[in-house]
Amino acid sequence: MAQPNGLQLRSTVKKDGTLELTLVNIPTPDPKPDEVVVRVDAAPINPSDLGLLLGAADMSTAKASGTAANPVVTATIAPNVMRMMAGRLDQSLPVGNEGAGVVVAAGTSEAAQKLVGKTVAILGGSLYSQYRVIKAAQCLLLPPGTTPAEGASCFVNPLTAIGMVETMKLEGHKALVHTAAASNLGQMLSKLCNKDSIGLVNIVRKPEHVKLLKSIGAVHVVDSSQPSFMDDLTNALVATGATLAFDATGGGKLAGQILTCMEVAANKTAKEYSRYGSTTHKQVYIYGGLDRSPTEFNRNFGMAWGIGGWLLTPFLQKIGPVEAQKLRERVASEIKTTFASKYTKVVSLPEALALSEIAVYGKQATGEKYLIDPNKGLR
Amino acid sequence: MAQPNGLQLRSTVKKDGTLELTLVNIPTPDPKPDEVVVRVDAAPINPSDLGLLLGAADMSTAKASGTAANPVVTATIAPNVMRMMAGRLDQSLPVGNEGAGVVVAAGTSEAAQKLVGKTVAILGGSLYSQYRVIKAAQCLLLPPGTTPAEGASCFVNPLTAIGMVETMKLEGHKALVHTAAASNLGQMLSKLCNKDSIGLVNIVRKPEHVKLLKSIGAVHVVDSSQPSFMDDLTNALVATGATLAFDATGGGKLAGQILTCMEVAANKTAKEYSRYGSTTHKQVYIYGGLDRSPTEFNRNFGMAWGIGGWLLTPFLQKIGPVEAQKLRERVASEIKTTFASKYTKVVSLPEALALSEIAVYGKQATGEKYLIDPNKGLR
Repeated sequence: MAQPNGLQLRSTVKKDGTLELTLVNIPTPDPKPDEVVVRVDAAPINPSDLGLLLGAADMSTAKASGTAANPVVTATIAPNVMRMMAGRLDQSLPVGNEGAGVVVAAGTSEAAQKLVGKTVAILGGSLYSQYRVIKAAQCLLLPPGTTPAEGASCFVNPLTAIGMVETMKLEGHKALVHTAAASNLGQMLSKLCNKDSIGLVNIVRKPEHVKLLKSIGAVHVVDSSQPSFMDDLTNALVATGATLAFDATGGGKLAGQILTCMEVAANKTAKEYSRYGSTTHKQVYIYGGLDRSPTEFNRNFGMAWGIGGWLLTPFLQKIGPVEAQKLRERVASEIKTTFASKYTKVVSLPEALALSEIAVYGKQATGEKYLIDPNKGLR
Repeated sequence: MAQPNGLQLRSTVKKDGTLELTLVNIPTPDPKPDEVVVRVDAAPINPSDLGLLLGAADMSTAKASGTAANPVVTATIAPNVMRMMAGRLDQSLPVGNEGAGVVVAAGTSEAAQKLVGKTVAILGGSLYSQYRVIKAAQCLLLPPGTTPAEGASCFVNPLTAIGMVETMKLEGHKALVHTAAASNLGQMLSKLCNKDSIGLVNIVRKPEHVKLLKSIGAVHVVDSSQPSFMDDLTNALVATGATLAFDATGGGKLAGQILTCMEVAANKTAKEYSRYGSTTHKQVYIYGGLDRSPTEFNRNFGMAWGIGGWLLTPFLQKIGPVEAQKLRERVASEIKTTFASKYTKVVSLPEALALSEIAVYGKQATGEKYLIDPNKGLR
């Protein structure tokens, strides 16, 4: 039986410096023996999707054209940003790292056939699509009674939260620091650390975010907008012994401030003068870029320190497929508790291209998380 | 037989924000069975000695007092710098990481007695002293015919140069980058890499330093004062495949520029668009602070990168005593060739405290390296 056509969201960066977002209607291939066809019912817009989706375009220049059912969005990309786009020029790229849905057709293999009618979560790109053909082995079977909306964010945020804790253990730290900690990911990390009895220092930028995190059980929450920030952070570092931080902001002085406070905390217990500062290794991993300004620090934290990039995929490669699968199964079993996500709004594919919606989800503001239902109104 | 008294240089940071440099005349203890007494005939002033010696004081405020034979130097330390001095306040600290001299007395053990009359190199602090009592096992016996001046710099620069190359091998890089590359250390690293056929990109700040390094056989020398610097560096990175850099400057934009050029070099061979940049890990280790301004970078080099502190002592601890001893013996055997040092001037202890001399060696200028002979005029 031939598969139905389906809508798919596409992002193109053109040579002339224009971003173009469109919907295309494409045939769904028949599944190979080891493949299934998933009707995608829920796919989140994560910060990690926005780079590919918006191509770092200046969205204040965005213009809508096309029709309500088949909208087209164009926007201008600054020349200095275009230099980084060389690898994707004039390619119509599908978007959407992860999602969940129901298996509506399957190849002939036993593994594929077993999934028919089941709700599964998927990581693998092209999820802002009505249908996604994928290997049965790449589907994470959700526990009975889990909806696609509940299972849509099984990978990026949950595995990132677990990956931070596992990195802490692998690299010999005893507690950790997280910035932009009121985010969906931050709340998840906070619940995970509570459950696993791991010390966590949450750094937020607004007083209301302190309240939010305290309300879900966070112990150490410090607000970088307060004048007492450096002292508050140092005290929390002394209390937890945290010498590892994961920073979602990337730019500005925050990474350096964390290292400075870690050094002060380490020296509070030092017994003699060490010319090169504390010998305790202090590490900040930058995993996001909410603050696009340059990163700046003063190196007043001795010589035992590091700042570096951190990404989920290389971490999963490092621990290997067996360990990675254990982590995924833990996520599935706790998807309604520890790893539950909240969304502000559910939109269809055409609605996702409305300028008014892009203006909201494009800001990456804490507490404004969107879910796309590619089959909304089409089922 | 009682040992003679000896002069020793001392540095004190006082609570009131004053640095004081003095000479003290102290008794030399009798050596224990496993110890020897070394008459120190040569000790270099390395950049790594200046931090302890000058306490980050503002040397433009330096004043001389005392007598020609027993000079005293005082200078003011800025209040914001004083915060980092908490661990050494009001302590009269000896200075001088390394040096060489002749064993003039020894304890009763066989190992100690065997060294009597021999010329040895020492690492261990307090080398700006006429006499240094130290364990026989800590002495590096120099090849016959080596003078103390030739053997004075056996540890800090040679082991740092070797440590950089060994770190490159341990961490899986195939070539390396060095900044402030015309320094004594930089010339040594250049000779070492030539001898061991290792790719090295030398970054210097002046056209005359390009000539200097080319004259000792360096292949890749790029001048950061030229408008073509970023292109020149990228070309040298493509030619060598270097993905690791050791940076002596620390401050400013240089570390970030190196990572940017490494990313461009890595992407020149990439075949498809990778959203998160090159997956090749790019690393800069900061091991000095010639530029005291803040470190600043733009993170336009993907996610596979790291910047961190690097010090010789933790590196030697990591490879263990057996491997470290092999490295020391290599240095001794090549001390007149690969690891030879050049000095601008030889000064006595009182001369080292002359304001006119401090003004020269305190600048850490490339090509201005001093050697202290604590027994000059006193033998």
